Amino acid sequence: MSNFCFKDNMAVRHSEVSASSPSSQTTVTPIGSIMTQIPESCYKMWGGRFTEGPHDLDASKAYAEALHRAGLINAAEADKLVKNLELLRFDWIEGTVKILPGDEDVHTVNERLLVEITGELGQRLHTGRSRNDQVVTDMKLWLRKAIRETLGRLSRIIETATRQAELHLGVLMPGYTHLQRAQTVQFSHWLLSHAFALREDGQRLLELRDRANVLPLGSGALAGNPLGIDRLWLAERLGFSGVTANSMHAVGDRDFVVDFIYCCSMVSLHLSRLAEDLIIYSTKEFDFIKLADGFSSGSSLMPQKRNPDSLELIRGMAGVITANLTGIMMTIKGTPSTYNKDLQYDKQFCFQSFDKLSQVLEVTDGVLQTIQVKQESMEAALTTDMLATDWAYYLVKKGVPFRQAHHIIGRVVSEAEKRGVDITDLPLGDLQKFSPLFGSDIVAVADYSNNVQQYNAIGGTASSSIVEQLRLLKKCARDLAKQS
Amino acid sequence: MSNFCFKDNMAVRHSEVSASSPSSQTTVTPIGSIMTQIPESCYKMWGGRFTEGPHDLDASKAYAEALHRAGLINAAEADKLVKNLELLRFDWIEGTVKILPGDEDVHTVNERLLVEITGELGQRLHTGRSRNDQVVTDMKLWLRKAIRETLGRLSRIIETATRQAELHLGVLMPGYTHLQRAQTVQFSHWLLSHAFALREDGQRLLELRDRANVLPLGSGALAGNPLGIDRLWLAERLGFSGVTANSMHAVGDRDFVVDFIYCCSMVSLHLSRLAEDLIIYSTKEFDFIKLADGFSSGSSLMPQKRNPDSLELIRGMAGVITANLTGIMMTIKGTPSTYNKDLQYDKQFCFQSFDKLSQVLEVTDGVLQTIQVKQESMEAALTTDMLATDWAYYLVKKGVPFRQAHHIIGRVVSEAEKRGVDITDLPLGDLQKFSPLFGSDIVAVADYSNNVQQYNAIGGTASSSIVEQLRLLKKCARDLAKQS
Amino acid sequence: MSNFCFKDNMAVRHSEVSASSPSSQTTVTPIGSIMTQIPESCYKMWGGRFTEGPHDLDASKAYAEALHRAGLINAAEADKLVKNLELLRFDWIEGTVKILPGDEDVHTVNERLLVEITGELGQRLHTGRSRNDQVVTDMKLWLRKAIRETLGRLSRIIETATRQAELHLGVLMPGYTHLQRAQTVQFSHWLLSHAFALREDGQRLLELRDRANVLPLGSGALAGNPLGIDRLWLAERLGFSGVTANSMHAVGDRDFVVDFIYCCSMVSLHLSRLAEDLIIYSTKEFDFIKLADGFSSGSSLMPQKRNPDSLELIRGMAGVITANLTGIMMTIKGTPSTYNKDLQYDKQFCFQSFDKLSQVLEVTDGVLQTIQVKQESMEAALTTDMLATDWAYYLVKKGVPFRQAHHIIGRVVSEAEKRGVDITDLPLGDLQKFSPLFGSDIVAVADYSNNVQQYNAIGGTASSSIVEQLRLLKKCARDLAKQS
Amino acid sequence: MSNFCFKDNMAVRHSEVSASSPSSQTTVTPIGSIMTQIPESCYKMWGGRFTEGPHDLDASKAYAEALHRAGLINAAEADKLVKNLELLRFDWIEGTVKILPGDEDVHTVNERLLVEITGELGQRLHTGRSRNDQVVTDMKLWLRKAIRETLGRLSRIIETATRQAELHLGVLMPGYTHLQRAQTVQFSHWLLSHAFALREDGQRLLELRDRANVLPLGSGALAGNPLGIDRLWLAERLGFSGVTANSMHAVGDRDFVVDFIYCCSMVSLHLSRLAEDLIIYSTKEFDFIKLADGFSSGSSLMPQKRNPDSLELIRGMAGVITANLTGIMMTIKGTPSTYNKDLQYDKQFCFQSFDKLSQVLEVTDGVLQTIQVKQESMEAALTTDMLATDWAYYLVKKGVPFRQAHHIIGRVVSEAEKRGVDITDLPLGDLQKFSPLFGSDIVAVADYSNNVQQYNAIGGTASSSIVEQLRLLKKCARDLAKQS
Repeated sequence: MSNFCFKDNMAVRHSEVSASSPSSQTTVTPIGSIMTQIPESCYKMWGGRFTEGPHDLDASKAYAEALHRAGLINAAEADKLVKNLELLRFDWIEGTVKILPGDEDVHTVNERLLVEITGELGQRLHTGRSRNDQVVTDMKLWLRKAIRETLGRLSRIIETATRQAELHLGVLMPGYTHLQRAQTVQFSHWLLSHAFALREDGQRLLELRDRANVLPLGSGALAGNPLGIDRLWLAERLGFSGVTANSMHAVGDRDFVVDFIYCCSMVSLHLSRLAEDLIIYSTKEFDFIKLADGFSSGSSLMPQKRNPDSLELIRGMAGVITANLTGIMMTIKGTPSTYNKDLQYDKQFCFQSFDKLSQVLEVTDGVLQTIQVKQESMEAALTTDMLATDWAYYLVKKGVPFRQAHHIIGRVVSEAEKRGVDITDLPLGDLQKFSPLFGSDIVAVADYSNNVQQYNAIGGTASSSIVEQLRLLKKCARDLAKQS
Repeated sequence: MSNFCFKDNMAVRHSEVSASSPSSQTTVTPIGSIMTQIPESCYKMWGGRFTEGPHDLDASKAYAEALHRAGLINAAEADKLVKNLELLRFDWIEGTVKILPGDEDVHTVNERLLVEITGELGQRLHTGRSRNDQVVTDMKLWLRKAIRETLGRLSRIIETATRQAELHLGVLMPGYTHLQRAQTVQFSHWLLSHAFALREDGQRLLELRDRANVLPLGSGALAGNPLGIDRLWLAERLGFSGVTANSMHAVGDRDFVVDFIYCCSMVSLHLSRLAEDLIIYSTKEFDFIKLADGFSSGSSLMPQKRNPDSLELIRGMAGVITANLTGIMMTIKGTPSTYNKDLQYDKQFCFQSFDKLSQVLEVTDGVLQTIQVKQESMEAALTTDMLATDWAYYLVKKGVPFRQAHHIIGRVVSEAEKRGVDITDLPLGDLQKFSPLFGSDIVAVADYSNNVQQYNAIGGTASSSIVEQLRLLKKCARDLAKQS
Repeated sequence: MSNFCFKDNMAVRHSEVSASSPSSQTTVTPIGSIMTQIPESCYKMWGGRFTEGPHDLDASKAYAEALHRAGLINAAEADKLVKNLELLRFDWIEGTVKILPGDEDVHTVNERLLVEITGELGQRLHTGRSRNDQVVTDMKLWLRKAIRETLGRLSRIIETATRQAELHLGVLMPGYTHLQRAQTVQFSHWLLSHAFALREDGQRLLELRDRANVLPLGSGALAGNPLGIDRLWLAERLGFSGVTANSMHAVGDRDFVVDFIYCCSMVSLHLSRLAEDLIIYSTKEFDFIKLADGFSSGSSLMPQKRNPDSLELIRGMAGVITANLTGIMMTIKGTPSTYNKDLQYDKQFCFQSFDKLSQVLEVTDGVLQTIQVKQESMEAALTTDMLATDWAYYLVKKGVPFRQAHHIIGRVVSEAEKRGVDITDLPLGDLQKFSPLFGSDIVAVADYSNNVQQYNAIGGTASSSIVEQLRLLKKCARDLAKQS
Repeated sequence: MSNFCFKDNMAVRHSEVSASSPSSQTTVTPIGSIMTQIPESCYKMWGGRFTEGPHDLDASKAYAEALHRAGLINAAEADKLVKNLELLRFDWIEGTVKILPGDEDVHTVNERLLVEITGELGQRLHTGRSRNDQVVTDMKLWLRKAIRETLGRLSRIIETATRQAELHLGVLMPGYTHLQRAQTVQFSHWLLSHAFALREDGQRLLELRDRANVLPLGSGALAGNPLGIDRLWLAERLGFSGVTANSMHAVGDRDFVVDFIYCCSMVSLHLSRLAEDLIIYSTKEFDFIKLADGFSSGSSLMPQKRNPDSLELIRGMAGVITANLTGIMMTIKGTPSTYNKDLQYDKQFCFQSFDKLSQVLEVTDGVLQTIQVKQESMEAALTTDMLATDWAYYLVKKGVPFRQAHHIIGRVVSEAEKRGVDITDLPLGDLQKFSPLFGSDIVAVADYSNNVQQYNAIGGTASSSIVEQLRLLKKCARDLAKQS
């Protein structure tokens, strides 16, 4: 028996035959002392979990049919295998599958259970198949579902964001670059900027789904299949758009897993930036938004505290998920081609990324659904220095080259700062010392709301542009929802 | 003047006006002592380089035309700007552009040079544009070229691999899983398995190119453009398929850079696995291949040494390139939305990834072009235990359930091991003790070459399958070459 | 109640008072729909676990005494708190502690349980303390134990390595650089080279233990303690060598956690190199060692396979553990100073690193304990080209400058290669064409065993040097064992 | 000649002998087409630089003396080698060393130059030495200098921080946890909290310096030294405290490089948190500090902008430097033991980390030296809800269990919030409804300055505690300066 806690069917084979066989070997020296030092569950040790159980059944059902089509079993046998594999699904769903010490992984569990019910017939299922191509196939089936669910979550957040943006259309706030007040924008414009980042995440996932959707089953351990299995039929049966083209590549390829973790990492990065904005906006000093109580928490010492824990956990999760990306890439780096056991860690990296991302996506949606937008505070934060760019455009429209206009307004801002007043408080006469083109119509450029509406090129902060953005994102949310 | 080595045009402005202007401020305390402590070139410090110079000119030419179309300058002015921008290109190509201490980056250099030639007209070019949208636009133009060149390099390696695979069709070698001899495969099958990984890299790059091909120009600093710039026209003019949909997202978005570095990292991972295989295959113990002298090196101490330095450098490069991925993700994580100066590091991560990848792709191609395949050694390494799977299939074909056949052959292998002989050396009579189905026809399953040809499902190691793989990869190489 | 699954005592407070209090707020809108979407255990969600339970009790007991010393409770009260905290320890050990939905973490659980037993007295325990300083203190107590256990595991592996090295003293093998045969070394020398890497890991952990051994308790939430708590007494009581010097730094500092994960990562890197060596040495082509059956596994398809799964899992674990390092650094990067909830992820990174490392250390020890050294194969792999360096030294001893000697022997090796013979097969006359200094005494340099003994400088591969290495490592193993 | 741009002396050897030697091989097929495709300088390609030049001379001088002591050269020869090596140092310092196409690295350059001057004698220097032990030795000498300089920079920042803290003693500000106002603290307390993080960095570097200070020279290529070199003498001569204990470990060990990059990463993380604080504090909304103009910059579009670019670049640098840590760990992971060329990348990771860190340390020091502390704004941000903890302590001192006091004050804060007033505005009568223990002496707890002084436990924010912190840090700055 294996001492290092990764059960192997070789060991099972030996023990089964030990009584009757001339060639049975008992060279396996039990080293109990080592065994007992290993503290935790072996399965937990190597990070596996049994999520792929049902997917494994799907793949096996199709494979049973393929065996029949290749003439390796007859129709009745195929039918019996399929029916019994379907029965096992209930056990997985009900959670009644019992893992025995000899079970190495979900695949061996399924085979064992099948043999228990169907006897010798079950022993025929693995014909021409290897765990190497089986495990990749199962992971691809899992991936399909994980992508679908993630698209659903992205869709819901985008939908929530558009709803809030629509609701708050017209609410102004300072737009920041370098965290310094830059120009007036609409709150909706800011909120949608984050939604567009998520739209791209959706796109990335859809492309991955298509790119990875080729069936590895039929690659065997590494050399392929010599028994007439019809891989194209199998692919169609399992919803793949094609088959892998080289069996040695297929069994050692984990690109689709790395790609998926990468996609999750990108989402988490986007959420970390949204969270950072919201953490800053919910400080007493900014006071632009208020988190719902359900997404805040208190302090064990300071009675007045109201901490944006949910947002900090979203922000920090980017580190957790991206770590999985580093981890899988480092694990794969420099391994020989085809299958090596190191690749098995793909599961823990992948499943954790998916689980953690699912959680923060739910929390993010909850935060956005319940957030309180403090319009008054936001608009109180608009200051006249934020008009500077519009004042420069005012001069440009009167014929001043932009770089000069930028320069002149720079001096106007400095002068106002020196005097400790707003630029709108400078008398026209004083302004005209900087440029004779200043006229009384400069007053019109002091209206934040009016200025905002001028930014009506595609993508700008004018309401007309935002309405178009809403349209795009609603469509995106619907499209992603359809894919989920 | 800026003390921390990132020149700013604000500072330039101040110094220009200091003599004559009432509002000029001289609050900038020169802190020479700090300045002089900073040892290296400021530009090198912040990792920029002037690669985007020509791309910046392209974007500016289009922008000048757009200003004309928006009525902000007349046709003659637009024409003059375009012509003079084109002149600057020669300076960049010739390397005669002189960077002054006041120049902050490639964008300010170009604007300064333009103003030097065209005077006031040049000061109009930046109207409605910000460095924030300008720099993203330039990076996207750079990216287009970088993807094109990378596709070219991938194409050449795939082409080299197919050529070598075609040349060596029929050469057998042990196929390994877990670095243990598994089944006989063709050398060409192994080589192409690596080419298929690179094919997927090409696919990833093509998708990125399409996904990122939307124009950010016209987003301004963050709020958009209020001067009637026709962004769709600009997009078409610059070869983009559309425009970004939200200006706040556009100026702070670096997804396309992260995506590109990710693609480079994946290529480098694939190359690291190829290199690992080759390093092992070129040991004295395996002795399957011989590197050309030009890709090996000697030892300063040991006269007999012949080290696969080139391969080790390829393998190690995966660490270098992937580090850039970690770096850019960590840099972006948790930054507030829109533009922050942290984003500027995107350039050094991106350019280094591209440069390093380009180098290892060239070296890899050179290695494959000149590699010597030692057929005799490879085929000498085929051992009869590698027939075990085929022997199991032999029994399967006679009706034994696969799991039992696997079990029986396992015992046969053990018996042979115990006796210290090959399984092919066991007398038929002894074999029949394990299964009465063994017959004299088992002899036919002892021919490695014959066995290999049975793996003729798509993707297998049979020659017919490899020929199909060659067809796919040749097409891929041609397609990528067309895109490059 | 909190909707985002991080329970807070603020919420608890609200609900407690809601019936009777004029100021009770019921602004917390339950958003059940969100709540129910969150699929997994909240505690699992945020990665916490209750490992610190017992450590929390230790810290609390000391704190109760400190409260008494500060005059905040009397001696009987302190005594009662200490006794009841000690009782709780049994519950943790027995696993009978029941976590309620309102419990946020191990600290609130302990406080709740204490109040359940001791009533109002228990409510006095948290006086002047914050979860912020409490949690760091508990982690430091955990760290102390984790370091101790890790040192014990390192000690055992070093001890196993020295035992095997001692047992196999005199066994020769090719030493490799660049995976090419370089010079003859002793197997023991190779094995001990890995043990020395682990010795440095032990050193690193010991330094961390001392560096981090300062008490944060008494820092409050961030501002310190205003109630006369004697921190130096507390430190001594809890086995710390001093107290943290700045409370704002203390509550936000996680350096000791990052340091520990770094130490674990370095161990895992060292093990990955050992595993790589062993994987290669256990190929059929090298055939230097044989893994015990318990640390190998078979194939589901190929009956003859014997895969070094345990070693591949050790190698791959470096990716898993190092990922935690990237993760925690990325999580901390750019967070504001003092405590932010992001820091909470330190636990999952840290605990996983410790758990996974513990497992691979056990497996590594098992592998080394049971490994079979194939002396005959190793010595059969010694080839005469590995004598080249010694031949060069032969000429050096006769007065030839080393660079010339290196050059001459290079030519000798080439000549032998060209003729297809060993350098020892070249007739003396032919050798003398390369250098007249070759004499019949060159024969003596052809004895691998003899050559090895010449490398007797400290650290060399001569037996005298290895004996000294054994002495150092045995002492190291003993020292580490004492610390564990 | 080598085609892949890593020059080797094997190639040099071949070309030297090609005319006269019977065994000269010309099997090296020049593949010019590949060569010319490689665009950049070969040396730049593999990331080397010639920084170690002078260190290499130091090591070689000592080695020449050691050769004499071992009787391999005489006193006059040793003297001549030493003198001429010293002459080469001037060439490195003057920058007049010319790199030829055949030079592989700094070591071969030095040997070539030495042979040019000293002829045959120079060819004796490499006796018993390998580039493998030579390069590690040189790196360790480089490390010693890099640590010294880094300690100097840390010392200067700590000194600047203490100076500013001393200057602003008594300035109050809100202390934040979760970026929410928590309790009143002193500005100096906050500033010193960052200095204490850097103090730990200094400690880490000092420990590394001692741990790594053992000499690898004398390890040869991997097997050790057979020529009687006195390694202990060499160690003392070069300032090492001992020698490495196993030659195979010594030549493949890069722990000290990884450790150094780790130390740099930790510093960069600490600086990123300081930068984040300062970026937030310099927003218009907080307005606590003002950056000097020399460390700010303007906008190309918005005339009024004043961006904290320097701080953003400091924050982002954590990503750049930490990426090197990921990179080197990934590069080392899974490489076989002893030397492999992958290890050569250690230089680029290490040198970049040092260079980049040096730059941000200088900039950080400049920022702190010139920062303007806006006392008035800070103190205006103190709000009465920050008194809540002190009010709870007020009740605790009157006998209320802390948890109850916390609860009561929570209700008081809620009540004040509901009424829209400060807690200090609630009439005593109303307060007494929450607890009858409220008395008129509660007024005394409303003085922020007074409250701060109560936090006088070690590490607290009272002036007495800060004075002690200043003492510790001044001592630390002096100690580090001595080491630099």
